[in-house]
Amino acid sequence: MLLSKGDKLLFIGDSITDCERKKPEGEGLFGALGKGYVSLVDALLQAVYPDLAIRVVNKGTSGNTVRDLDGRWQQDVLDQKPDWLSIMIGINDVWRQFDVPFIKEWHVYADEYEATLRKLVSETKPTVKGLVLMTPFYLESNEQDGMRAAMDQYGAIVRKIAEEFDVIFIDTQAAFNVVLEELYSATLAWDRVHPTAAGHMVLARAFLDNIGFEWKRS
Amino acid sequence: MLLSKGDKLLFIGDSITDCERKKPEGEGLFGALGKGYVSLVDALLQAVYPDLAIRVVNKGTSGNTVRDLDGRWQQDVLDQKPDWLSIMIGINDVWRQFDVPFIKEWHVYADEYEATLRKLVSETKPTVKGLVLMTPFYLESNEQDGMRAAMDQYGAIVRKIAEEFDVIFIDTQAAFNVVLEELYSATLAWDRVHPTAAGHMVLARAFLDNIGFEWKRS
Amino acid sequence: MLLSKGDKLLFIGDSITDCERKKPEGEGLFGALGKGYVSLVDALLQAVYPDLAIRVVNKGTSGNTVRDLDGRWQQDVLDQKPDWLSIMIGINDVWRQFDVPFIKEWHVYADEYEATLRKLVSETKPTVKGLVLMTPFYLESNEQDGMRAAMDQYGAIVRKIAEEFDVIFIDTQAAFNVVLEELYSATLAWDRVHPTAAGHMVLARAFLDNIGFEWKRS
Amino acid sequence: MLLSKGDKLLFIGDSITDCERKKPEGEGLFGALGKGYVSLVDALLQAVYPDLAIRVVNKGTSGNTVRDLDGRWQQDVLDQKPDWLSIMIGINDVWRQFDVPFIKEWHVYADEYEATLRKLVSETKPTVKGLVLMTPFYLESNEQDGMRAAMDQYGAIVRKIAEEFDVIFIDTQAAFNVVLEELYSATLAWDRVHPTAAGHMVLARAFLDNIGFEWKRS
Amino acid sequence: MLLSKGDKLLFIGDSITDCERKKPEGEGLFGALGKGYVSLVDALLQAVYPDLAIRVVNKGTSGNTVRDLDGRWQQDVLDQKPDWLSIMIGINDVWRQFDVPFIKEWHVYADEYEATLRKLVSETKPTVKGLVLMTPFYLESNEQDGMRAAMDQYGAIVRKIAEEFDVIFIDTQAAFNVVLEELYSATLAWDRVHPTAAGHMVLARAFLDNIGFEWKRS
Amino acid sequence: MLLSKGDKLLFIGDSITDCERKKPEGEGLFGALGKGYVSLVDALLQAVYPDLAIRVVNKGTSGNTVRDLDGRWQQDVLDQKPDWLSIMIGINDVWRQFDVPFIKEWHVYADEYEATLRKLVSETKPTVKGLVLMTPFYLESNEQDGMRAAMDQYGAIVRKIAEEFDVIFIDTQAAFNVVLEELYSATLAWDRVHPTAAGHMVLARAFLDNIGFEWKRS
Amino acid sequence: MLLSKGDKLLFIGDSITDCERKKPEGEGLFGALGKGYVSLVDALLQAVYPDLAIRVVNKGTSGNTVRDLDGRWQQDVLDQKPDWLSIMIGINDVWRQFDVPFIKEWHVYADEYEATLRKLVSETKPTVKGLVLMTPFYLESNEQDGMRAAMDQYGAIVRKIAEEFDVIFIDTQAAFNVVLEELYSATLAWDRVHPTAAGHMVLARAFLDNIGFEWKRS
Amino acid sequence: MLLSKGDKLLFIGDSITDCERKKPEGEGLFGALGKGYVSLVDALLQAVYPDLAIRVVNKGTSGNTVRDLDGRWQQDVLDQKPDWLSIMIGINDVWRQFDVPFIKEWHVYADEYEATLRKLVSETKPTVKGLVLMTPFYLESNEQDGMRAAMDQYGAIVRKIAEEFDVIFIDTQAAFNVVLEELYSATLAWDRVHPTAAGHMVLARAFLDNIGFEWKRS
Repeated sequence: MLLSKGDKLLFIGDSITDCERKKPEGEGLFGALGKGYVSLVDALLQAVYPDLAIRVVNKGTSGNTVRDLDGRWQQDVLDQKPDWLSIMIGINDVWRQFDVPFIKEWHVYADEYEATLRKLVSETKPTVKGLVLMTPFYLESNEQDGMRAAMDQYGAIVRKIAEEFDVIFIDTQAAFNVVLEELYSATLAWDRVHPTAAGHMVLARAFLDNIGFEWKRS
Repeated sequence: MLLSKGDKLLFIGDSITDCERKKPEGEGLFGALGKGYVSLVDALLQAVYPDLAIRVVNKGTSGNTVRDLDGRWQQDVLDQKPDWLSIMIGINDVWRQFDVPFIKEWHVYADEYEATLRKLVSETKPTVKGLVLMTPFYLESNEQDGMRAAMDQYGAIVRKIAEEFDVIFIDTQAAFNVVLEELYSATLAWDRVHPTAAGHMVLARAFLDNIGFEWKRS
Repeated sequence: MLLSKGDKLLFIGDSITDCERKKPEGEGLFGALGKGYVSLVDALLQAVYPDLAIRVVNKGTSGNTVRDLDGRWQQDVLDQKPDWLSIMIGINDVWRQFDVPFIKEWHVYADEYEATLRKLVSETKPTVKGLVLMTPFYLESNEQDGMRAAMDQYGAIVRKIAEEFDVIFIDTQAAFNVVLEELYSATLAWDRVHPTAAGHMVLARAFLDNIGFEWKRS
Repeated sequence: MLLSKGDKLLFIGDSITDCERKKPEGEGLFGALGKGYVSLVDALLQAVYPDLAIRVVNKGTSGNTVRDLDGRWQQDVLDQKPDWLSIMIGINDVWRQFDVPFIKEWHVYADEYEATLRKLVSETKPTVKGLVLMTPFYLESNEQDGMRAAMDQYGAIVRKIAEEFDVIFIDTQAAFNVVLEELYSATLAWDRVHPTAAGHMVLARAFLDNIGFEWKRS
Repeated sequence: MLLSKGDKLLFIGDSITDCERKKPEGEGLFGALGKGYVSLVDALLQAVYPDLAIRVVNKGTSGNTVRDLDGRWQQDVLDQKPDWLSIMIGINDVWRQFDVPFIKEWHVYADEYEATLRKLVSETKPTVKGLVLMTPFYLESNEQDGMRAAMDQYGAIVRKIAEEFDVIFIDTQAAFNVVLEELYSATLAWDRVHPTAAGHMVLARAFLDNIGFEWKRS
Repeated sequence: MLLSKGDKLLFIGDSITDCERKKPEGEGLFGALGKGYVSLVDALLQAVYPDLAIRVVNKGTSGNTVRDLDGRWQQDVLDQKPDWLSIMIGINDVWRQFDVPFIKEWHVYADEYEATLRKLVSETKPTVKGLVLMTPFYLESNEQDGMRAAMDQYGAIVRKIAEEFDVIFIDTQAAFNVVLEELYSATLAWDRVHPTAAGHMVLARAFLDNIGFEWKRS
Repeated sequence: MLLSKGDKLLFIGDSITDCERKKPEGEGLFGALGKGYVSLVDALLQAVYPDLAIRVVNKGTSGNTVRDLDGRWQQDVLDQKPDWLSIMIGINDVWRQFDVPFIKEWHVYADEYEATLRKLVSETKPTVKGLVLMTPFYLESNEQDGMRAAMDQYGAIVRKIAEEFDVIFIDTQAAFNVVLEELYSATLAWDRVHPTAAGHMVLARAFLDNIGFEWKRS
Repeated sequence: MLLSKGDKLLFIGDSITDCERKKPEGEGLFGALGKGYVSLVDALLQAVYPDLAIRVVNKGTSGNTVRDLDGRWQQDVLDQKPDWLSIMIGINDVWRQFDVPFIKEWHVYADEYEATLRKLVSETKPTVKGLVLMTPFYLESNEQDGMRAAMDQYGAIVRKIAEEFDVIFIDTQAAFNVVLEELYSATLAWDRVHPTAAGHMVLARAFLDNIGFEWKRS
């Protein structure tokens, strides 16, 4: 397990991260962490490693692109002084190009995406013990699909930046692809984007497997 | 225009037809026809052919499969004594196989679909002036996609039955495909099934073009 | 078709234009264009001319008079930089004279109406590719009716200004009159002002016919 | 004053009578009489003739035609054993012919209207001290208007029946016409049917003037 | 009739005047005048004197004492430039002394009441054509009742000021007393303060009789 | 203390007893006993005599008269097999005579009240350990007030029946009168009927003092 | 993994199992399995073993005791024909003895609990492939606590029956105790009964570990 | 009785004090004092000592710690100029250490608690006639329980400060312990913190017994 006792682990992202989390705190009682993978990560950490006393904070906000993250980075990340930070962003950056194709100023193209994400990682890495970059994903098996192809491109950018800065990289698309071999995408997400509980578990498992979590501690 | 003055035109189907129509009447004041293609067909008929006094009735019900139509056919179709009848069914018959794959009894497979639809058409055709069969559709451009392929199979069944009984056949998938060449599916439907206003207009236009409607009457 | 690929087409007006559009954006996902003629125009453009990628924006606001348009013109029209602009205003300017006759300061009389509309057209025409002026209307067949007569007077002002500036003129009252020959006004509008879906289709068709739209592209 | 101490006065009719009255009682505390002319009649009787202790009951039901009154006559009129009965019906009988012209079975034509109303009056008159027939009305000044002309025809039927049975006749259209000479119809009713408070006062005054009410008792 | 064509008649007061009027305007469509005596006065004026075109405005606010009126006098009375003004205030000034006896700063005692009301009348009278002072009231027949006695004292103050300034005085308590001889107070007001429709009609009639209104114009 | 360990104490009555109790049980978790004197009695018994384990049940129903109690006596009293029973009824029997004086069939006059209450007490007394009769009350100090006088008459009937059957009698009016010497009735009840928390405490204290409760157990 | 491809796994129990599941189906789209351990079990099975196509059904109902299970056993268990059945019941059987101690008929004591549970297991075991008995639990570390001691007694009954019938036994209290060594009970459950997401994960993990689930399949 | 005629008695604290009181006033009509011990104290004072005219004000705020009280002390205590002040604070100061153990900045440890409470008492005592310090409490019988032990420690701090300043001290834990000998904690509070009506009565009684209240005045 890479996390140490008392570490503060902060997640930031879009609606996949948000999932009705409490605002603005992003932590506390009564389901404050929302209903998605962040809550599952927290539940698994508490259930299996209660002695580590990991403090999980959720700062996801529905609809966000990397441009929005940039706008609230000081307040929602740096001021929070996390020990560990996990970023999953890019779905809306891509999606708006496909569901409102005529409103160009709502699109965040690959160059802006890459530059902004690099800047955020660059300025934050020195302040944390660990940093995790999760790719955006699209629950579509067909790699030739236009939006899937675009999402893969953004995922490749995340991989490139993770390698540049030597931080933990999680290929969420790859994690989903294993399941999509067995199940049609509609079983995992009504709109190919917002996962069911099972889909969020795929994300939580991918995250945990990359930070040394073990289901049966030995 | 194939319809005559005073004809009663009844639509039956699933949520694409339903679209928040008034229940149980399916006609009347204040948006009783719902917000989908049925309302658009009615609006275009009234706007362009007000002298024809066509009476449109909407008996779509969300979530219905052909099995459900069979169960309410006497009350919602035969008892209504329509002059013209339009049927669009099959989306849920297919969809349940893909979004709840483990609950087999919610699936309506192709043989049952074909037998039931044939029975309904067979017993109804003698009672109406005209009958229209619209295929189900799936807003996915990739013909190799599993659910799209299944939907195409059901569409082919509709075509076969239409030919058997010599009734009007409307290939809604083909109508959408023209638009999908220009626009990604997410622009026309959040979940690839429930169309936007533009998507419903595609359906309405396909219907009207098959019954002799002319935008500019001459 | 007068519109070109990628054009931004902005509608401004009162409740007939508004129709529950999303505020303040007036565009986007999930019915952001409202439920009236603007949404129908957009749906028909997307369904028939998807390749043109026309971006439609709705800036109608319920209850507005031309005096209100003047107050928000910079923000809601000029700052939006539309390629095409369509204005339909005047119903409330007239209506308040008839439904709250004792509250004089809520009335916008013909001279103020004419002067304000001319000013708005004058300062905006140089900034757009095309400008459309739609008359206000009243769904009353009797031309001797007091409010119908007043509305006709305001419609004549719109025609005069359209001619002065050589912009597209749409006589919505004339479009409705064709239908009113067949249907009593109550069939098209509960209160003779807010049209049913069919009434909005009359408006959309009148608009489209004036910008070169063809139902069957050749 | 024609009413005697302790008389029970029952009103029956459509939405003009109903006006959100308490159901099913139609009397009691907290605005049980609704917000229309029935409540005004009761208020004026209590304010000016508190010693008469008149018991007012409201059995109006929105949307009713004379066909609906016939269906609930035993329960809502005869079983109530009123001393005085007032009937105002016919607006919906006519209106449906104009706002849903294609749904014929919702129309109540003049012959059925006359026969049904005569039957109800005939069987009820022997059971009450007094019976009042109020005409339906339409807040449209133009007598050539189609719906106004139809309403006048139904009003004439009411007059004929009142004369046949020698009961009190109230020409509500005439009462409104006096006001319509000064005010445009939209001032009195948004939709030409459902009156404002002022319009309901016109009805209440017409009723009271016909039963001997005096504003200043002498 | 003391009012002239086109006069603006403004009412100010507490919850008896307010009665769910539209805020902040206090006039307009759709029941903007509330459900109390102000609306009844307006309805009777429109029904009987439509040619006078009286504009009625309601500026009552629930819970107000004369201290509150003083605070909003400039905005809600003087800036409105009424031709006629009617004031009914004092019920809460007295009531708070009886229902929250321990919270002294919520009470408005007689001396403050008199001084404030005199100031308001003094500065306003020169600006209007006519001014009406209505007493507060309490629907309790027993003159020895503590709160009734206090209310009578405040009513006497109103009378004194009316005489000083020679404006129209309306003794609402006296108007109610006539009815209370026949009906127990609970019939007219659940809490002895907020009247039923009949109670509001008593107020409206008292007001109208003092400005020359005639039910049957001659 | 007259109650014994484990006794079941059931209260029945009207809205004063009901006070939003849980229906139909009238006992259980989360405020099931309502917000009135029954809940206060239970709270004081649990707080001071927790060892007695008294089970309190609330079967009050808003709007009830003794006629209504008669209708549900078998189900709500006898079938519950209480050890102790407390009855407080009569307020609505009287009140309806004063707030809806014209609807005679809603009134329960003194003879019916007395006969019904006697019957209920007679058939129930043999089945319980103890029975308590609480008078109805009216928070009006003036004994000459019509409704207070009537309520006193009904209270006298309760006293008479209590003496006949030798059961515990509680004069709630007397208990309130002590407080009304200091506080105006409006302080204790908005409408002279439904008490504030303080008023309910007066009732609870009167009840407890009659069953041997001691605030400081010795 | 003990489950086979296509197995139907049904959970029955009280609010811990229910957790807002869809009623009456207990399966389907959009969170139909609720928000508790059943949903987590399903999510983990789908995420890790998508090829097994396990169908999970949730028939928990809030507030149930074993007496309630008995009443709906035929409909909610036997008629469902599950391949595997998991039962967790007993918390309310015990809790009612402690939170409503005076309402004896709501308590299910140990003898009734044991007899009923044995009967249900006995008649169901022959119809299923596998049966799991989970103990009730109480999130209180102090074994001398009265309610904890009682819950332990009911847990021992579950163990005894599991051994008698040789079915899978899960000691949920033991699973929680490991975590309670690190965390105070209030961290896992507001009321010591309804777990947080972390608490539900403890339950899901205990269940899965007993049916051969492996986080990392090999 | 230590309070004198007309005294203003202000309570401040957390959710136990708040109990849905009206904000921001904390006094007035219609249950403004909330549903907890403050309302019960007021009800008992009014019912038994109506002549004393004690004015009770509730300034409790849910979720508050002593740190929060410090932040609003000027506005909610000193500016109110109470004659008597009662403080009960500390439950959340302790609870957050046990239900969100990882969020350290939400905890108020004993040293800060003591220093802040001492400061508030010190600066307020000179301004009031009487000051009451109530301990926080925890409805858990087991003194070895971690949170109970912590709460006892904070209670001891309250006692120490009360002795230092010679103000009235109320040991609420001791008052509850008497009842907890008979009833399991779940009977008095769902979550061991928020009492039932009976639990609030224990608090009210403890308060009143310490200010000389007598149930039966002699």
